[in-house]
Amino acid sequence: MTKALLAALLTAAAAPALAQPTIAPPPPPVPPQVEQLRTAAMQDDYAWDIVEGLTTEVGPRLAGTEAEARAREWSVRKLRSLGFANVRVETFDMPVWVRGEEKAWITAPFPQPLVVTALGNSGATPPQGIEAELVGFDTIDELIAAPDAAVRGKIVFVSHAMGRTQDGSSYGVFGRPRREGPSIASRKGALAIVVRSIGTDYHRNPHTGVMSFAEGVSLIPAGALPLPDAEQVQRILKRGRPVRMRLVMTPRNIGTRQSGNVIAEVPGRDPRAPMLLVSGHLDSWDLGTGAIDDGAGVAIAAAAAKRIMDAGRPLRTIRIVWFGAEEVGLFGGLDYRAKHGKLAYHAIAESDFGADRVWKVDSRLGKENEAEAKMLQLALAPLGIVPGSLEKAEGSDISPLLADGLPGVTLNQDGTHYFDLHHTPDDTLDKVDPAALRQNVAAWTTMLAVLSGGIEPHPKRRNRR
Amino acid sequence: MTKALLAALLTAAAAPALAQPTIAPPPPPVPPQVEQLRTAAMQDDYAWDIVEGLTTEVGPRLAGTEAEARAREWSVRKLRSLGFANVRVETFDMPVWVRGEEKAWITAPFPQPLVVTALGNSGATPPQGIEAELVGFDTIDELIAAPDAAVRGKIVFVSHAMGRTQDGSSYGVFGRPRREGPSIASRKGALAIVVRSIGTDYHRNPHTGVMSFAEGVSLIPAGALPLPDAEQVQRILKRGRPVRMRLVMTPRNIGTRQSGNVIAEVPGRDPRAPMLLVSGHLDSWDLGTGAIDDGAGVAIAAAAAKRIMDAGRPLRTIRIVWFGAEEVGLFGGLDYRAKHGKLAYHAIAESDFGADRVWKVDSRLGKENEAEAKMLQLALAPLGIVPGSLEKAEGSDISPLLADGLPGVTLNQDGTHYFDLHHTPDDTLDKVDPAALRQNVAAWTTMLAVLSGGIEPHPKRRNRR
Repeated sequence: MTKALLAALLTAAAAPALAQPTIAPPPPPVPPQVEQLRTAAMQDDYAWDIVEGLTTEVGPRLAGTEAEARAREWSVRKLRSLGFANVRVETFDMPVWVRGEEKAWITAPFPQPLVVTALGNSGATPPQGIEAELVGFDTIDELIAAPDAAVRGKIVFVSHAMGRTQDGSSYGVFGRPRREGPSIASRKGALAIVVRSIGTDYHRNPHTGVMSFAEGVSLIPAGALPLPDAEQVQRILKRGRPVRMRLVMTPRNIGTRQSGNVIAEVPGRDPRAPMLLVSGHLDSWDLGTGAIDDGAGVAIAAAAAKRIMDAGRPLRTIRIVWFGAEEVGLFGGLDYRAKHGKLAYHAIAESDFGADRVWKVDSRLGKENEAEAKMLQLALAPLGIVPGSLEKAEGSDISPLLADGLPGVTLNQDGTHYFDLHHTPDDTLDKVDPAALRQNVAAWTTMLAVLSGGIEPHPKRRNRR
Repeated sequence: MTKALLAALLTAAAAPALAQPTIAPPPPPVPPQVEQLRTAAMQDDYAWDIVEGLTTEVGPRLAGTEAEARAREWSVRKLRSLGFANVRVETFDMPVWVRGEEKAWITAPFPQPLVVTALGNSGATPPQGIEAELVGFDTIDELIAAPDAAVRGKIVFVSHAMGRTQDGSSYGVFGRPRREGPSIASRKGALAIVVRSIGTDYHRNPHTGVMSFAEGVSLIPAGALPLPDAEQVQRILKRGRPVRMRLVMTPRNIGTRQSGNVIAEVPGRDPRAPMLLVSGHLDSWDLGTGAIDDGAGVAIAAAAAKRIMDAGRPLRTIRIVWFGAEEVGLFGGLDYRAKHGKLAYHAIAESDFGADRVWKVDSRLGKENEAEAKMLQLALAPLGIVPGSLEKAEGSDISPLLADGLPGVTLNQDGTHYFDLHHTPDDTLDKVDPAALRQNVAAWTTMLAVLSGGIEPHPKRRNRR
């Protein structure tokens, strides 16, 4: 950078006065109300208060468990205390899987313990565990290509080469060992499978995550090793001697239990105007306290709505949804769609990609709202957010609604470090950067302000009414 | 840095020719043989081969266990295969403590699991655990000042404010909760104690480490919480409601077992010349694979000796000692002193502070060897190593010998990140930077070359003897 700067300074000094760069015409002004709300949101404390409270006073919130139920109670109290209207829980039933013991060892040729965690919906070993030869594959495609005889009666290990990406796209590409591996291994007659965690950090904290066995496939134990353990296994396998693993993994399905979505509103001046939906998910994996996945998301969405509510009455109703049971299969998103999918929405959005800064805005608001979409891009630019697509919106729990064609906005967070923490014991409050969290709140507040249809300031309060 | 560079450039350009800075007289030349060995060592592969092999093929090596015995066997094979002379094990007996189950939960007011690990020599809970009120202290001095009634029948939590230091000195200052806390809590009638890990990282990997109860004090369970968990407990305590903890921790003492030191030599041309001793420790804590503590140390010491041996015959014998049972109480260092403390040493040294670069050299070689000590400083300077004290030497296993007044050298490693990993599950091979490891080998090779009394090159081999 130093050399580059020096070169730039020398070039600047040497440049003739004639060679002025072309300057784009100035953008149309963003309404002062939006700018004020954006600036004020950079001092936000509401979001920190929510994520700190939820992760401290509830902690881990596995879908369908009593911990998630406590989280709903906590949420109702919190949203009411913030002054939102129509705060309620909409329950639904779901199948629940819970973790048991999980331990692993290499027993030969170099006996030593490993760290392992069960993937969601994993089958179980007997309580005393299983021991078998370990057979390794560098990719899921190698496993697919392997003859059944190479796998039958063994424990399968699958690696991969996931790297960091700002947009998280490597999760899709390299998530196959977790999502597909267990069914493929089971079909070939494997006793169990362990995969290299779908993650990017080198800590002894494995990454769990949901998978489901294909129709008719026998359930086998399916676990994830942290990267240090996965690479240790690879080094051991490369020695070329037969490798044996012992695995104890005793998760179980506990049947149908209740989960639910928590809903709250900022009532709009026009109840018939298509509304804005902002969301995150309340449940978390059980290993951490769900600070970045997705305590930060519910906090950001609610804090932005709160800031609009404090400023005045928006034309459109803003609905906050804290979805239940996202991690284990989008049960909350699907329940919401069944109950509210036919309502009129001006835009729907979800924050569920950590707590790092928003770097890009995508939207799909329709041709008729293109001016508003462009205004949104301009209004977000001072936060360091670049304009993205005008024909795209994403979000986990809202994906069923987006698939129905509903309009949406995505405030894309930087995911470079997300998969260091995602679904691990390390997803704890200390990982949330308060400054980045405020930038998120500012982005969401700006988005709501631009799309609100206008915010009518509250009448000035008289002193001592 | 950019601004500073620019300022420097401008100053340089503007400086009048008269204002030449005073230049120190050039240092006396370092012997070309030393420079060649130093340069060649920056390509070293011996150290990586040792630390990779030991951590992969043995893994964790808790003192006195069969894993440490396997490590000794591995070491003898490795040191013989490298061509060292007089490779042997010197055994000694020691009391052995092993880890059991370890689990913790906050049970009220916000039920949730915590991560905990037992400190070495911790007492045990019953198998079903204990549950009691948790009382928190921000410092060990607060615990000391507390009346017994505030502690009796409770579980004690002690925090601290350890920060990073390049020289690791914060470990001494802030290690008191681990070293002193258990005895103090027990004397006051506490049921158990958990301390904030003596570490600097925010991962869910607790830091173990040895402690010992004072004479006559009842053993109580003593554990460490990772920083995210310790801060979670502090947040919960700050809510002001009574907090209860459940703790299951079942380590046990398994009686007297055998440990041992592994010794190897590069025989010197003059068997009567005081020798050089280079060392590290072979045992590790059980949570990680002991890559930085102290696989790297034994690797660095042996790789440097190997490079000297490959270059020729030193005047002085170089003795390599891979100590056993350092972590749990310097048993190996004390046994070595008892057996070999009266021999003549020109210098003794140990590498046991991780695998980051050497940044400073201290020595205590005596007034009569001051010229050699200064030559050592000059010879190390090109590796980015600054001169330190000429009257100081340190080292864990060699501290009994240093206390006897033996001469020593300390090649101080950068400890800024050491306590992110030290005594945690995260102490694994992936944490070793091969480039930094080579710089260490170059520093140790240089040290041995300078202090060797001169290396006589091997006679040129005739082809096809």
